[in-house]
Amino acid sequence: MTTTLLDAAALAALPHTLPGWQHRAERGGTLSRTFVFQDFSQAFGFMTRVALVAEQLNHHPEWHNVYNRVAITLTTHDLGGLSTLDLRLAEAADRLAAPFAPQPAKGV
Amino acid sequence: MTTTLLDAAALAALPHTLPGWQHRAERGGTLSRTFVFQDFSQAFGFMTRVALVAEQLNHHPEWHNVYNRVAITLTTHDLGGLSTLDLRLAEAADRLAAPFAPQPAKGV
Amino acid sequence: MTTTLLDAAALAALPHTLPGWQHRAERGGTLSRTFVFQDFSQAFGFMTRVALVAEQLNHHPEWHNVYNRVAITLTTHDLGGLSTLDLRLAEAADRLAAPFAPQPAKGV
Amino acid sequence: MTTTLLDAAALAALPHTLPGWQHRAERGGTLSRTFVFQDFSQAFGFMTRVALVAEQLNHHPEWHNVYNRVAITLTTHDLGGLSTLDLRLAEAADRLAAPFAPQPAKGV
Repeated sequence: MTTTLLDAAALAALPHTLPGWQHRAERGGTLSRTFVFQDFSQAFGFMTRVALVAEQLNHHPEWHNVYNRVAITLTTHDLGGLSTLDLRLAEAADRLAAPFAPQPAKGV
Repeated sequence: MTTTLLDAAALAALPHTLPGWQHRAERGGTLSRTFVFQDFSQAFGFMTRVALVAEQLNHHPEWHNVYNRVAITLTTHDLGGLSTLDLRLAEAADRLAAPFAPQPAKGV
Repeated sequence: MTTTLLDAAALAALPHTLPGWQHRAERGGTLSRTFVFQDFSQAFGFMTRVALVAEQLNHHPEWHNVYNRVAITLTTHDLGGLSTLDLRLAEAADRLAAPFAPQPAKGV
Repeated sequence: MTTTLLDAAALAALPHTLPGWQHRAERGGTLSRTFVFQDFSQAFGFMTRVALVAEQLNHHPEWHNVYNRVAITLTTHDLGGLSTLDLRLAEAADRLAAPFAPQPAKGV
């Protein structure tokens, strides 16, 4: 699957296109979001569905889970920054978390 | 985990306690329900969460999946009929499917 | 992902290319195999990995699980028979089951 | 499930009982191990099986995954240190990773 780095316009639009995600400059650019679910079962059901998308895209998250929390960081290592694959994986994560109405993470 | 066969009153109440499930007399008693999701991802996310409950209960479903459909049959083989474990697993399946608002199966 | 029906030579070779699978004529052609694992955990770990391949291929199995048994049937409904996607999914299932050295199913 | 903190003898024996795990004093005691698999599919298949054990024990890992790496940290927050549940979860992780012969992590 071909992918390209996000251009300046796409980067500037991130607060609007992905309002739940934090854009950081480290490693050429990363996107991060922490999802807080009701329990481990919701969190792992969500992770399983994100895993299915990640394998489809052949683009995988860096993620950390403790019980009901899933913290995801996205970047495209091969390109040294944020790419269209990161956008697609972030959008998928938002969509797959939505049925559980996860709570905003506090202090993350 | 101890379990006991459902008594006559619990069996008679099944249409009210588990309205989505079909109670059949075969094998001493079975409960069956088919869930229809939007796609395979929803179906498999649901199955993963049911699997977590099944291992907790040490009581496992007979289930069949094709794309967006998951057909579940429950019975307690060791006791030769329906037990409280089947009730618990059926209730869990209903609860775990609810966020996806699965469609009623047609002709099943 | 484009796929084509298996030609006569590929069909004739199935006993050699997929020795663990049964080829039946129903529905234009199906491939079936039952894997027997040590327990539910092995069976569901296997199913999760097959699910990842199925989403990658956008080609999904018909499968039935009871505790440590996973019975898979493959066919390509859209083409009315066996296709290269069925070969790929069958090969993946064999490869993903191998670490667990599943036992041959009896009487299936 | 009742659990107790590991006593001094059990803590001293950790290098022998769990040779692949690092014991650190932080937070009253933690156990950590990084598993390196061949690919994401192996890593996530492993995680799914560890998830099944975690729900059974009602004791969950802190874990981080990137592609083929799974880094696990265990502690029993409620007791403020390492407990018998951490031992059981660590032993389960070792057992569930074994079929994949994961490589030792370098520089972790």
